[in-house]
Formats: sequence, C-alpha cells, structure tokens
Amino acid sequence: MEAKTEAGRQAISRVEALTERLANWARHNDRSGSFATESMEALRAEGILGTCAPVELGGDNLTSLHDLTLVVEHLARADASAAVAAHMHLVLSWYFARTLRTGAEGPNAARHASWCRLIGAREMVVCSAVSERGRFPWTPETCAELKQGAWVVSGRKSTASNSPGATHFYTRVRVNTTEGPRLGTVMIPRSTPGVEVLENWDGLGLRGSGSGDVEFDDCRVPAEAMTLGGPWGQEEGRKLEGRVASTAPLLGVPMGLAESAWKYGRRALLRLSAERPLTGTEIHLASDAEVCLTAARGALTVLMAALDADLTNRAPGTLSVSDGSILMRQTVAAGLVVERAAIKIIELSMQVCGGAAYHSSHDLARNMRDVRALYYMRPYTPPNAWRDFLVASVLKEADYVL
Amino acid sequence: MEAKTEAGRQAISRVEALTERLANWARHNDRSGSFATESMEALRAEGILGTCAPVELGGDNLTSLHDLTLVVEHLARADASAAVAAHMHLVLSWYFARTLRTGAEGPNAARHASWCRLIGAREMVVCSAVSERGRFPWTPETCAELKQGAWVVSGRKSTASNSPGATHFYTRVRVNTTEGPRLGTVMIPRSTPGVEVLENWDGLGLRGSGSGDVEFDDCRVPAEAMTLGGPWGQEEGRKLEGRVASTAPLLGVPMGLAESAWKYGRRALLRLSAERPLTGTEIHLASDAEVCLTAARGALTVLMAALDADLTNRAPGTLSVSDGSILMRQTVAAGLVVERAAIKIIELSMQVCGGAAYHSSHDLARNMRDVRALYYMRPYTPPNAWRDFLVASVLKEADYVL
Amino acid sequence: MEAKTEAGRQAISRVEALTERLANWARHNDRSGSFATESMEALRAEGILGTCAPVELGGDNLTSLHDLTLVVEHLARADASAAVAAHMHLVLSWYFARTLRTGAEGPNAARHASWCRLIGAREMVVCSAVSERGRFPWTPETCAELKQGAWVVSGRKSTASNSPGATHFYTRVRVNTTEGPRLGTVMIPRSTPGVEVLENWDGLGLRGSGSGDVEFDDCRVPAEAMTLGGPWGQEEGRKLEGRVASTAPLLGVPMGLAESAWKYGRRALLRLSAERPLTGTEIHLASDAEVCLTAARGALTVLMAALDADLTNRAPGTLSVSDGSILMRQTVAAGLVVERAAIKIIELSMQVCGGAAYHSSHDLARNMRDVRALYYMRPYTPPNAWRDFLVASVLKEADYVL
Amino acid sequence: MEAKTEAGRQAISRVEALTERLANWARHNDRSGSFATESMEALRAEGILGTCAPVELGGDNLTSLHDLTLVVEHLARADASAAVAAHMHLVLSWYFARTLRTGAEGPNAARHASWCRLIGAREMVVCSAVSERGRFPWTPETCAELKQGAWVVSGRKSTASNSPGATHFYTRVRVNTTEGPRLGTVMIPRSTPGVEVLENWDGLGLRGSGSGDVEFDDCRVPAEAMTLGGPWGQEEGRKLEGRVASTAPLLGVPMGLAESAWKYGRRALLRLSAERPLTGTEIHLASDAEVCLTAARGALTVLMAALDADLTNRAPGTLSVSDGSILMRQTVAAGLVVERAAIKIIELSMQVCGGAAYHSSHDLARNMRDVRALYYMRPYTPPNAWRDFLVASVLKEADYVL
Repeated sequence: MEAKTEAGRQAISRVEALTERLANWARHNDRSGSFATESMEALRAEGILGTCAPVELGGDNLTSLHDLTLVVEHLARADASAAVAAHMHLVLSWYFARTLRTGAEGPNAARHASWCRLIGAREMVVCSAVSERGRFPWTPETCAELKQGAWVVSGRKSTASNSPGATHFYTRVRVNTTEGPRLGTVMIPRSTPGVEVLENWDGLGLRGSGSGDVEFDDCRVPAEAMTLGGPWGQEEGRKLEGRVASTAPLLGVPMGLAESAWKYGRRALLRLSAERPLTGTEIHLASDAEVCLTAARGALTVLMAALDADLTNRAPGTLSVSDGSILMRQTVAAGLVVERAAIKIIELSMQVCGGAAYHSSHDLARNMRDVRALYYMRPYTPPNAWRDFLVASVLKEADYVL
Repeated sequence: MEAKTEAGRQAISRVEALTERLANWARHNDRSGSFATESMEALRAEGILGTCAPVELGGDNLTSLHDLTLVVEHLARADASAAVAAHMHLVLSWYFARTLRTGAEGPNAARHASWCRLIGAREMVVCSAVSERGRFPWTPETCAELKQGAWVVSGRKSTASNSPGATHFYTRVRVNTTEGPRLGTVMIPRSTPGVEVLENWDGLGLRGSGSGDVEFDDCRVPAEAMTLGGPWGQEEGRKLEGRVASTAPLLGVPMGLAESAWKYGRRALLRLSAERPLTGTEIHLASDAEVCLTAARGALTVLMAALDADLTNRAPGTLSVSDGSILMRQTVAAGLVVERAAIKIIELSMQVCGGAAYHSSHDLARNMRDVRALYYMRPYTPPNAWRDFLVASVLKEADYVL
Repeated sequence: MEAKTEAGRQAISRVEALTERLANWARHNDRSGSFATESMEALRAEGILGTCAPVELGGDNLTSLHDLTLVVEHLARADASAAVAAHMHLVLSWYFARTLRTGAEGPNAARHASWCRLIGAREMVVCSAVSERGRFPWTPETCAELKQGAWVVSGRKSTASNSPGATHFYTRVRVNTTEGPRLGTVMIPRSTPGVEVLENWDGLGLRGSGSGDVEFDDCRVPAEAMTLGGPWGQEEGRKLEGRVASTAPLLGVPMGLAESAWKYGRRALLRLSAERPLTGTEIHLASDAEVCLTAARGALTVLMAALDADLTNRAPGTLSVSDGSILMRQTVAAGLVVERAAIKIIELSMQVCGGAAYHSSHDLARNMRDVRALYYMRPYTPPNAWRDFLVASVLKEADYVL
Repeated sequence: MEAKTEAGRQAISRVEALTERLANWARHNDRSGSFATESMEALRAEGILGTCAPVELGGDNLTSLHDLTLVVEHLARADASAAVAAHMHLVLSWYFARTLRTGAEGPNAARHASWCRLIGAREMVVCSAVSERGRFPWTPETCAELKQGAWVVSGRKSTASNSPGATHFYTRVRVNTTEGPRLGTVMIPRSTPGVEVLENWDGLGLRGSGSGDVEFDDCRVPAEAMTLGGPWGQEEGRKLEGRVASTAPLLGVPMGLAESAWKYGRRALLRLSAERPLTGTEIHLASDAEVCLTAARGALTVLMAALDADLTNRAPGTLSVSDGSILMRQTVAAGLVVERAAIKIIELSMQVCGGAAYHSSHDLARNMRDVRALYYMRPYTPPNAWRDFLVASVLKEADYVL
C-alpha cells in the first residue's frame, strides 16, 4: 500500500527514519512492561504527532484517512504499542483539523482550532480517556457538575492508551443538567489538580501502549470547556461517522503487524530454500500468507478510498445516519478481513521461522500477543456484537437489497 | 465495484439491459445442457462482444481491464456460462486492440488490426482453442506443416469454451521447422474445411458454456497466417504478461456469482427477519458472507488497478520477465481470495435460503456447480501448482524481501 | 470405522455384496432423476432392510446404533440416495425392535411388534412422511378426524424420502380431540384409498432418494391404529431422545461420501506421484483430507459409542429431558464435524482429480451435490438454529460448567 | 474423556488432588519465567511420576497410553509447563515398564528394569536430552568415545524440558566405532561430573517447563551403560514405533489446554446470559468451540484406542515398519486435529471472556502462549514436514487405496 498524498509520504518517511530506534525500544518496553516513553517523545519531536495540523500551524496538513492509516501501519511494523498510543492522538488531531478545513463555526470549532494550534506546535499530546470498565461509550459514569462557574469532573477511565505520555485527556462525561443527564465531552489538561495517571497497564500484548487507568478527582475545568452532546444513555446513530473516522485508521495496526511478520516469514523461507527444497508444508504456509495479505491489503485499500471520498472534506455531523451506518459496516467488514489475515499471517510466520520464533523476546512472539488486542478494539462497540451490527445494517437498507 | 471509464459504463449498461433474458436462457441451458446460443447471439448483436474495438471500428474502445472484468462480472450474475464463453473472446479482442493502441507494427500487428475490424463489425466471434488434454500450453500436440504454400493444421483441442458459437478459432500449434519444433499461433476460420466442433461438453456446471472439443483435420490456412513463437516445449516467462491479461478478467465470473448468490441470501434474510428474530446461526452465515464479499471486492479492485497501471497502455511484449511474474503472483493470490469467497458465499446463501435452494433448477444450485469450474481455470497453469508458483515467485525476488 | 457386533458385520457384508450394482444404479438414477427402485428392491430382497428385526422374525437383531450407522455409511459410499431412502426405514425398524427388546407393553408396543414382524418378513418398507413445508415437526397441518369409528387423515407431506418405494407411511398428524388438538402418529398402508405418492422430487442432489410429496386424501385407518402424543404445537424436550436415535445414523451418509470421495483422491495422487513429484498444492490438499477424515471418524465413533451406551437397551421414553438434550448436543456437534469434513474432503478430492471430476456424471460431481443436502437435514430442527441449540444446551447445564 | 483402567483413574485422582496448587504455581512460574520446581517435586512425591512402574516396584502399573494421555491432559489443565516437563519422564517410564511387561531380555531389558525400580521408588526423574539445535534426532553431534573402559560423552543438548528438575538425562549420542559412527543411547546421572544444566529457557510460553540447554563436558559413564543402535545419520523407519509412543501422550497438553480454556469461556457465557440475551457473535464463538472440542476429543479417543491395541502389550521393536508408519500417520493427523482445535478454542474463549482475558496474568493469556509450542513439538520430526510425511505414508500403502 502506498501513500496517496505528498503529506502522507512525508509523514511516512519521518516514521521510517525512526524505525530502527522504535523497534529497539519496542523490544525493551515489551520485556519490562513499561510505556513507550522514548518512542512517543520521538514521534512528538519529529513532528509526526503534528502531521494532521495545517501547514501554517506547524503540521503537514495530512488530510487523507488512507494516508493516516499508513502512518499508523508503518509505526506498527516497528512497534504496535507506539502505533496504538499514537493512533488516538492522530485521529483526534485529524478530526480537529477537519473542523477547521471545512469552515465550521461556533465554540466547538474554536476549541478545535486552538487544539490544532497546540498540536502543530508540538505542545499537545492527547489521550482519549473515554472508556470505562463495563460501560458503553454512551453511558459513562464519570460525571461533571457545574460548581462555582466551573465543571468539576470525577471518575475513573480505563484502557486509556497513551495516558502516561499525554499532556491532555479527551474525556467523555455524564453531565448532570436540570433537564436530566447529558453526554459531555471535555479536554482536561494533565496539569489540572486531581488528575492521576495510574500506569497500571499489564497486558498480554501492547505492553508499551500505556493503556492503564486515569482517575479524575474533582478536576476543575472552565465552564466554556464543555461540549454538550445528546442525552446520556442514548446510542446516537449519527455519531457512527465520528467512530468510523476514529477507528478505521487503527486497522493500520494489524496491517503493519502482518507486513512485519511476513517479512520474517519470507526471510526464513529464503534461508531454508537456499539449503534444500521447501516442504509441501512450508509451501502451504507461505502461499496462504500471500493470499491473506492480498485480501487484507485489498479490503483496507478499498475501505480507505471510500472513507476518504465520504469523510475527508465533509463538515462534521453532515453525514446521514444511514450513510454513517454503511461506512461503519464497511469498516467492520474490512476490519475483520484485516484482523483475521494479520492473525493468520503471524501464526504462519511463526511456523515458518521454527522454534526461534518461540523465544519470549522474538519480534514475532511479541506481534502475536499484540495482535490479539484487536479482539477488544474492533471498530464497532461492543466488539462481540460486530456480526449482529453487520447483519442489522444490511437488513436496514431495503434499497441495498433491491 | 464500479466502472472507471465511460466505455466500461456503456458496456455494463448494455449487459444490464439483457440481464433478465440472459438469466432465463441460463436456466434453460443448464437444464438441457445446451450451449448459450441465444445469449451469445444477443451479446454479439448488442455490440457487447465488440466493446474493446476502437470506436472508429464500431466498438466502445473499452481499454480498462478493471472495466472489462466488470463486464464479465455482470454477465456472470445472470449466466456464468455465457460469461465464460464471452470471456476469452473479450480478452483476445482487448489484446488485439491494445496492439493497435500502442502503435505496434509488423505482420502480427496487421493481423490484430484486421481482427479488430471484424470484431468491431460484429462479424467475428473468437474461440480460444488452445488447451489439449494432458498437455501444457507450451507443449501442444496439434501440429502445423507447411505444404504447397499453406499451413496444414491437424489435432484436437479440448475445453474450447464458446466453440459452438465461434466464427474463428484462435489456436496454438506445434510448428515443425527445419531447426526443430516451435510454437505457433494461428486463427482458423470456422468455415475452413476440416474444422469440426464436437459439442460434447457435459459438465457439472457451466453447462451452457460450450466447452467441448474442436477437431482440426488437415485444415489449410495461408502461409502468412501463422505467428511463430519460441521453441516448442519451453515455458516462456515473458509470456506471463499475456496470460495475466487473458485470465484476470475471468475473475469477474466468481465475483459475479458471489454478488448474485448473496443477493438471494439477503432477500431470504429480509423475509425471515420480517417474521422473527434471526437465529445466531443465521447471523453467523450472513456476517461471514459480508466479510468474504469485502475481501473479494478489495482484492479484485486492487489487482485490476495494478493491471491497468502496468498493462493497459503498454506495448505487447515490453514487460520484463520479473514484472510479469509479479503481476501473475498478484493475479493468482487475488484469484484465490475471490475463488474462496465466491464458494463460501454461495454455500452460506444456500443455507440461509433453506431447502428451496436445493431444487435442481434454483439459481443457487446452478451457481454452486458453476463456481467449482474455477478449480480448473486458475490464472496459473497448471492450477494445482498455484501455491508452488506463488512461493517460487516470492523467493525469486530478492529485493522484495530486502 | 469397524462394526462392533456380529449382526453389524453381517449387514455390512450384505451391503458390500451389492456395492457395484448400487453404484451403477446410482449413476443412472442421478442422471435421469428417477427413484432408486432397483436398489431399494435389492436392499429389501437381500434382507438389509430387515436387519434390525429380531432373528426369530427374520432379521439379524442388529441393535447397535454404531453398526446401523455403518450400514448407512456403506450404502452411501455406493449411493447416498439409496442410503437416505433406506435410513428412515432402518431407524424406525430399530426403534420398533427396541420396544420389543426392552419389554415395553401396551397397544403401542403391540403395534411395534407387528411392524417388526412385517419388516423381518421383508413385507414392509416404511417411509417417514412427517415433514410439511413451512411447519415444525410439532405443528403438522395434516389432520385426523374420528368419523364412524375410523380416523380419516388428510394433508400433504413433503420431502418424504423413499416414498416411491414404500409400502407404508409413518405419519404425524394433528388429531382434533374434544380437549383440543394433539399430536398423533399413525402408520398408513400404501394400499389405503386416498394415498397418492407424487414422485415430484427434483433435487440438486440425492436425485434417486425419492424425496417428493405424499398426499393423503380422506385416508381411513382403524381407530386403534392411532398413537396419541402430547398437545399439538408444543415442542417436547422428552422427544429429543427419539430424534437423536432417528437422526444420528444419518451421519453415515456424509461419512460414506467422505470415504468414497477420498478414495478417488488417493487414486489420483497415486497416479500422479508415479509420474512426477507431487506439488506443494497437492500435498496440502491431500494432507488436509487426511486430517478432516480423522476428525470425522473420531467424532462419529465417540458419538455412536455414547448413543449405544445410553439408548440401545433403554426402554423408550425413560431418558431424562436433560440427558436427551445432552445426547442431542453431542449429536449436533459431531454432526457438524462430519458435515464439514465431508464437504471439505469432496472439494479437496475434486481438485486433486483435476478436470475429469467436473464431468456431470463423475461420481465426485454427484457426491458434491448429494452432500449439500446435509445443510437441510441436520439432527436438530430447524437446521439453521443448530448453533443456538448448542449454546442453549450448554448453558442449561449448570453442573456441566461447575 | 474418561480413564479406561483403574490405574488411570488413580493417577488422575492424584493429579486432581494437586490441581489447585499446580494452578497457582503455574501462574507464578509463568510470570517469573522460573522452572516448575514445586510442581515437579509434588508430582514426584505423590507418586504421579512413578505411576507407570509395576505395582510391586511402587507404581500403579498404568499401562494404557490412553490413560497416560489423560494424566498429561489433567496436568495441562492446571499447568501446561508441568505437563510438558512430566510428559517425557512419563512416556519413558511407560516404555521401560513395557520392556519388563513383555518379558524382553538382554542388557537393555536389564537397564530398563533397573530404571523402573528407581522410578517406582520415586528416586529417578528423567529428562530426555535428545534434541540438538539444527540437528535431526538421527544426526546428533554430541559424541561418545570409549576411553579407558568408559564412555566419555561431550556435547550440548537443547530444549531439554524438565532439565532443571531431573536426576537423570536420557541422551542420544554419536558413538564413534571402528566401523563408523553409530547412534547410541545412554542414561547419564545428573551427579556425573561434567553435567551442566543451563536453565536458560525463556520461551513465549511453557515458561515453567525448564526447556533449556544441558551441556555434557567429558562425562564418564560405564561401558555397559551404552545401548548401541543403527548407523548414525540413517533415519530408521522401525523407530517410528518408539516415537509414536513417546509423542502421542503429549497430545494431552493441547487437549487439556482446550478443556481448561473452554471452561473459562462457558463461565463467561453463563455470566453474560444471566444479564442479557447472547449476541449472534457470541453464539457463533460458543458453538464453534463445542464443535472443535468434539472433533478433538473424538480424534484423540480413537487414536489412543488404536495405540493401546497395537502398542501397549507388544514387545519393543516387533511392530512392522509399515504398521509403525500407519500409527505415526494416525498420530500426526489426530495431533493436527487436536492442535487446531485447542488453538481455536483458546482464541474463541479469549473473545468470549472480553478484555479481562488480555491481562498478562490471566490463565487464558498464558494458555494461548503455551499452546503455540505445539507448532514445534508435533509428533513427526521435523514439524514443518508433517503434511509431506502424511501424504508419503498414504501413498506408500498400495493396499490402503485398493
């Protein structure tokens, strides 16, 4: 897969310049279970985290979701943890920049503009602190109360990837209003008293992603910092657009893991075939890897072309509910193709590489642990309802079926 | 998947205008095991078989292999037999037109030009009579001897799809020369004395494709009609380019079968879901179909973009051996994605549709028989060596592996 | 798999003596779409249809469900249609004989005894005319009214395999009583006025199985011929025992198809390997077939051992609801292993055998059509709820999970 | 699966009494990467390691390979590392005991008898130090030279599971004789000067199995301790019998991992289904797990019945080469069924259990790492030639194919 824009090519070449260092840090962090501090700092310093900001604000004006996915993919080849940690920052920055690009106005647009400025200036690294254990995205328990002209936020967020390295926390809360609870979104600077990053992530894989808990204990943010959304507890169809844009580039992670794994597999085959004819068993493993890779690249390429066509230059919130559902369906289906392919290619490569790949610090041994995180990070939430969503979405569209 | 060129859109809309009639003929031909005579005649009369000829010669100047594949795909939705019968004519016409387009010169170019003229005028329908039972494409037994200023061709060709409806037979022969046997290619008009079309095809599927034997018994063709190739018996790497261009559009057949089958599946689900909640079993069947379809469309789209980029406007024979091998590898891998997806989607749809789909004349019952022909028509020959080719091709490219 | 009892060995050797003739008839019937008349007559004449009757009544006293499944399996190797046609007769005869064996008493037992006598004397061939289009087994529309001391039965049954060759129809009806509708079971002799066998089966496969409709038009049967069951419309958990015993031996059909298909595959490999080294592609196809066969044989062997232990000598209706559900779960799960394996092995064999297997009258081409009938004949009804049943059954048993 | 002998039931109940402690140690060892010292000591102390010894020598006289596999299976449910470490000791003790049981005579039989005595007395724990990096079992580099009436052994063995806890090392060497090099087998006590256990195992999984290297540096063993085998470098068909007996019980490891994983999966489903209806996605995951489990149990049950029938009471070395090959083929094929099922069931269970299963110290997270070791420990060596062996074995038997 190749970048489609000059901005994409630039961002990818910046990633490639760091590849070797990222790969070494990845091995170390995996072993120790520590956050990818050096990697994230390098991504910030090299401007990779600012790539979506407009050029005049210090970024590359990377607007293509296809290219953004490739940036994530190239990060994942070296370190899936860093890719996951960077991913949410990147898609949020893309989202903020799109608000600017499409000329949206109002307080929310002003906030997005100011964040773009900070991101372009390499002064803001965002962590999406949205998830809570046992809660849907639209039923957060973390709540905000208006006290003395400021919002006071309290609650605990989980699997907040990138939290140890973030300067800001993009947070979803339950806002208690007189007309009942509503969803709210607010950016909380790390320097706010009451913010505590627990650094308690200890996953099977993605060990350097810093996906632990964040606690907010009476954190005060200005009244104008809160964006009010719909009623709390109501899943909003319209919001699928935002979820598509913020989850599809994550598919760069399994794609990058697959590419990286198969590189090991191919090298092993080259070595073996120099010594003796390959066995039928090996030919099967290798050819299946090529077929899986073809499916994954194909599905991802076609998906990202569809998303770029429909989302890249569209003003936020202007996509119809049904079009949002179609995009989400395409994202879920393509996501599964890539997920299955990545898992299978890593398994095939592990076999091709022989026992060496079973050493705890072999890259493939790390990749096979990293990739399983996909089970819990599918585009549609909850991840164990993806089939149900897919079918419901197909049935909803009468015209799709003729 | 959508056409990329205006010519493609035109050709597809011509096919769509015929769809219902093609579908009805398909059912009848399947039952009786008879050739798709009416369908092929309609394709000729409506100019679909001439679509690749230049506009000035009566065609649409369809140059995109992507679009040509979609033409085949739309035919296959209605009748895979007609699609297979038309396919070889179409890819040969594309090949002849490319010779013109790229400004090639010499006797071969002149022949291609004259054929384009006939095809554009709807006076030529080509059957590729190349295969022979138990022989490789590069070791034909059918031979040509120069006698009294003419080539005398004798031999028997097999699985010559479209033979009952063809006006000409594009044939590969063993030419006995004084310096040893060489491969030769010659177009034999059906009116030539000694041509016999056996109409002995009785397949499990593709029953209307007319894929029986053709016998040449001392058929005389003019001396200047023969194109001499390399030595007989030697597989020519360079020729992979031609094989890619002539086999990739055939992937429209499984793609069309998959699209058509899943339409039945979706309709059945809609009906069922109007009566009761779908079972988990049905949700699994339906969601897997969506995932498979996504993989197939993705792989085919990306493949055809690559072929259009590398082949559409390239002069014949100018692709390097190694680039030809890469294109063939991509074609084989994508072909397997599509083949597997089509087979699976038809199986899933049969289950979703319940026992009705098991009636001998249900379209799905025909589709499931038709699609198995793919096992024997893979892009690489022989089809049971596709894994071996794929792996050999990967290993040959040192730089691919770094 | 080998027979466990002497009676089983005898029955199988009788089948094997007929094998070649059955195979030839199978080819003819498949082509013409006609019922396996000669085959069923031979099975009757050779005592194979009477094998479950006690020795003193003319049978072999075959009591093992494992062995009965192998009888069906050996039939299916030669002709899946005859195996399906014979299957329901065989399992009903087994069921009647078990009633005798376990010393059950009452009018139902007397009926079973009289049927055993007829079956042992080779004078009764039973067709199970239970299914109705769009109805569950427990909601038949065919109804019986008591008029002038006799039951008058009217209605239409579908997919009544073996109907063209049957002397009796084992039928389930809705009995209208003063306390509301109940389920009833009755054996209707073919000679009864009003019985019409439509011979309208025209399936994709199992073309010789005679699985068409049977119509009952005011058929009068004696008052004492009716066995009254529970309330109409209520699915009875207890009845799973009967459904297990009557559907598990049908798994002999896919097993036999798999064994037969892989024999073709192995022969083709032997031929090929005598000429040249096998390709990696072929090695993959062949080894996967061996693995699938191992899974299928294993699952079927273990299932039948469990059924023999729990059902063979148990009085009818004495199994607990929960034990019946466990046996059904085991049957469904093993059934899926065998179904998947058989389908895959046939596909693999078709590829190994090359284009010859795609001829409409090749045994593999028939096998691949026959085996798809399994999609609609799974042990649990409805077949597209098997996953749901399996999971519900697992969850129902708290102790199973600890 | 249930034990078939009283001895098997006893051994399993001893394992079950330890289960909870084994499971706790397993978690600790996995985290620290340290050998299962406490577990192996408990297995020794409780007589589990002596179970194959005759009763009169202190064992249980466990003779059934089926039951021995179940002992390994029950160990693996609690700790796959301990199961692997115990496995080789157990199969060797079974092998020694069989020599006694079948009345073999000669120096080798005497050695086996003496080892049985030590094992029964709980004084001997064997490590199989046979493998060497990059070497086949029949081409060891470790060599033995006769010097001053003793064999002097030097070399390095790898993946010597259980080495940190072993009292003896069962070793294969290259014996340099005047007629050329031969294979030799020798038992080296750990107390021998020059033995060094490196404890350098650091695997992705099986972290408590102690599968590191063992070095022999001029280790002297008495002249009579060496068993001379065939010529060095020649793969002996006859030896497949021994390899079957010593590798088949290892299939208890994936089987136990599958059973254990699915227990977690079922628990999670029970919890979820108490709160809400299961999704179609979950129903698919759960039903597939049941089907896979059925295939695995079936294949393993049938395999072990075959091995018990052919090997349990047969004198060593009396099986024909071709029968040994058939048993190995059955073992390889069943092994793949179990391997695939175990991998799939663990993956399915991880998804059913949600994100909790992705914590580094969750049992499923350990199981999924442990089970991949199977890729490198298949019954046939080398593991990446299993397909080739399977097909070669099928083709070798003409009569198998008829």
